[in-house]
Amino acid sequence: MLDPARILERCDALARHSELPRGLTRVFLSPEARAATDKVLGWMREAGMQARLDAIGNAAARYEGERPGLPCLMLGSHLDTVRDAGKYDGMLGVVAAIECVHELSSRKKKLPFAIEIIGFGDEEGVRFGTTLLGSRAVAGIFDEKSLEAKDHTGKTMRDALREFGLDPKRIPEVARKKGDALAYAELHIEQGPVLESEGLPVGVVTAINGFSRLRVTLRGTAGHAGTVPMKLRRDALAGAAECVLATERVAKGHAELVGTVGRIEAKPGAINVIPGAVSFTVDVRAPQDPLRKHAVAAIRSEIEGICEKRGLKSEIETLQEFGVTACSPWLMEQMDKAVARQGFRVRRLPSGAGHDGMALGAIADICMLFVRCKGGISHSPLESITREDAAAGAKVLFDFIEHFEPRALPA
Amino acid sequence: MLDPARILERCDALARHSELPRGLTRVFLSPEARAATDKVLGWMREAGMQARLDAIGNAAARYEGERPGLPCLMLGSHLDTVRDAGKYDGMLGVVAAIECVHELSSRKKKLPFAIEIIGFGDEEGVRFGTTLLGSRAVAGIFDEKSLEAKDHTGKTMRDALREFGLDPKRIPEVARKKGDALAYAELHIEQGPVLESEGLPVGVVTAINGFSRLRVTLRGTAGHAGTVPMKLRRDALAGAAECVLATERVAKGHAELVGTVGRIEAKPGAINVIPGAVSFTVDVRAPQDPLRKHAVAAIRSEIEGICEKRGLKSEIETLQEFGVTACSPWLMEQMDKAVARQGFRVRRLPSGAGHDGMALGAIADICMLFVRCKGGISHSPLESITREDAAAGAKVLFDFIEHFEPRALPA
Repeated sequence: MLDPARILERCDALARHSELPRGLTRVFLSPEARAATDKVLGWMREAGMQARLDAIGNAAARYEGERPGLPCLMLGSHLDTVRDAGKYDGMLGVVAAIECVHELSSRKKKLPFAIEIIGFGDEEGVRFGTTLLGSRAVAGIFDEKSLEAKDHTGKTMRDALREFGLDPKRIPEVARKKGDALAYAELHIEQGPVLESEGLPVGVVTAINGFSRLRVTLRGTAGHAGTVPMKLRRDALAGAAECVLATERVAKGHAELVGTVGRIEAKPGAINVIPGAVSFTVDVRAPQDPLRKHAVAAIRSEIEGICEKRGLKSEIETLQEFGVTACSPWLMEQMDKAVARQGFRVRRLPSGAGHDGMALGAIADICMLFVRCKGGISHSPLESITREDAAAGAKVLFDFIEHFEPRALPA
Repeated sequence: MLDPARILERCDALARHSELPRGLTRVFLSPEARAATDKVLGWMREAGMQARLDAIGNAAARYEGERPGLPCLMLGSHLDTVRDAGKYDGMLGVVAAIECVHELSSRKKKLPFAIEIIGFGDEEGVRFGTTLLGSRAVAGIFDEKSLEAKDHTGKTMRDALREFGLDPKRIPEVARKKGDALAYAELHIEQGPVLESEGLPVGVVTAINGFSRLRVTLRGTAGHAGTVPMKLRRDALAGAAECVLATERVAKGHAELVGTVGRIEAKPGAINVIPGAVSFTVDVRAPQDPLRKHAVAAIRSEIEGICEKRGLKSEIETLQEFGVTACSPWLMEQMDKAVARQGFRVRRLPSGAGHDGMALGAIADICMLFVRCKGGISHSPLESITREDAAAGAKVLFDFIEHFEPRALPA
């Protein structure tokens, strides 16, 4: 029997591995990530899987099919969190997948394909500013240059991997080729309000919105807050404030567009010093790539105009760009059937949030199952799901796995 | 002979005690502050003074007059810096004062009053957000509540004092009473462009502008940057951006008014999370108290209006408020005469920046001598003075000391 109470207990258990005693923050390659990953590896083994920490810090496990070495159905989600996070974003998908395999193995049931579960070490990108590091490595699209990215203490990812006990040279060994996985399927909380508003516990994802992420640095002149007249100032923070509002204005221009400045740092950052430099991030997402690209161009142009007017210099760096990732129709159909067999109305919906499937799409067809979350709230300690919905999600995922039929290869 | 080269060398030597190897940042009660303070105590002793670290972390020294125990002429400035600071703001006044006493003692000259020099441990307030901690303690206006103030790591001032080897309970012993000091005189770089524009090496300060400092916290709702539609957001950073621009707009409303947002922090501070809370500081200064108070009221009202409109909650805390501190006419006259005797044109000017004299004013009449700095730039690594101006400043200060006449007490 799938045990929804155990799913929630395990999410609670993982949430106790946090950087700070209050709230949940668990970033890539941190000691708390290590502890959480070890816990997950233990559960994977308990579920009858071969499990190991891979070279990028993912918890990776395999449950063989009717005979050893078969291609796999890959399941997974991520184990890292944003700062002050909820306890289901990512973790629910890993724990629910383990629960499904646990059920198979307790029935001693083997399928005509293997199952692999990966708990990705980094999806959120909080520590090094680059997302999807775990799934990129598995998809063979990990950028070696990322190893030089630094966290806020100045430590490189390369050094952080070594301190975690991993060998950065072995990251390419994590990469899977096309055909290794018959499909990638991920269960995840919706992180939005659609399912709740329609009274549905689960939904089938049609596509993951594309996103663009920029890092913007404005440079003016630092100076004494008491002695430099207003008209002689080149205040980088006042300029950045205009850019934050311009980002908001552009994003409000279209109902399906969102734009966010999530991080900002003013330097030198003293109460009595005019900020000489400010860095901030811009995150833009849309369900159509041209809409997103147009918005990014508009924001860039606004930033340049603001700097021109204020005598500031700007540097705009594209940190990441991902086009819309479509879920595969043949997988959506199988997921729809699983939803219907479990007695729920089939609802398809797009994903406003990014997910590991964006990277896995490089080597396999993907699909996703969303589980309702309270108030659509995520990336917040207020993130919440019910035991009934955890049960519904796990049942549909198990049904999908049990009935999974690999696509007939083209003749 | 007063040695301007030694003055500059000592400023250079102090600048090597910094939190980071590049640039100069030295905050209150840090290990680098300890090293710099020990160096200063050594120079004080070399200059023939009795020197000790006091209970708030000031370097305090005394050079007796014609007989022991006479009231003193108090000289001083501060030894802490802003982040990424210049090497003269504060330090020049301490080092120049030591040079003057060195000259007296090498001539074995005793005056009809003692001289005390204090290198204040905190003026800038970078670490605990409260300024003038060293001079407040000496002036007997140190607020015990400050001991609970925390630095960015969460350490309280009380604990930081203990780690520095000091006993917070003994801070009241640092306080001097009215009459202990006949006057307080401080040499400081101008940190503004007036002297340079008039081709003058020194100027006599008339008053120190008053300032108000606020800490503002806006609270909205954190959420996922990809899933929350723009129209449902309560983005604390977008609100803060409007407040930054409102502060700028209010300050631009009067030529003598300045307003600065120097620090800003968005939480949780991730690229993909809508900021749920933002804190920032506001620093407002003016040469007339009513002008400053009116501006602060206008900024508060703008912040409240912005929050009302955006559905944010605001907390506005007054961190510090200091009225205009006037320099005493009898001291300005003696300083004018010293300037003239040394062959320079007498120029009086107000100080846009705050100084330790604001606190010392509670127990003594005060005066200040400004030394020209390049481009009026301060609170920046570009801060620069010439050897000739260092010499001019030291000579005028020495002349002032040598000719100092305590004010006849009222009959």
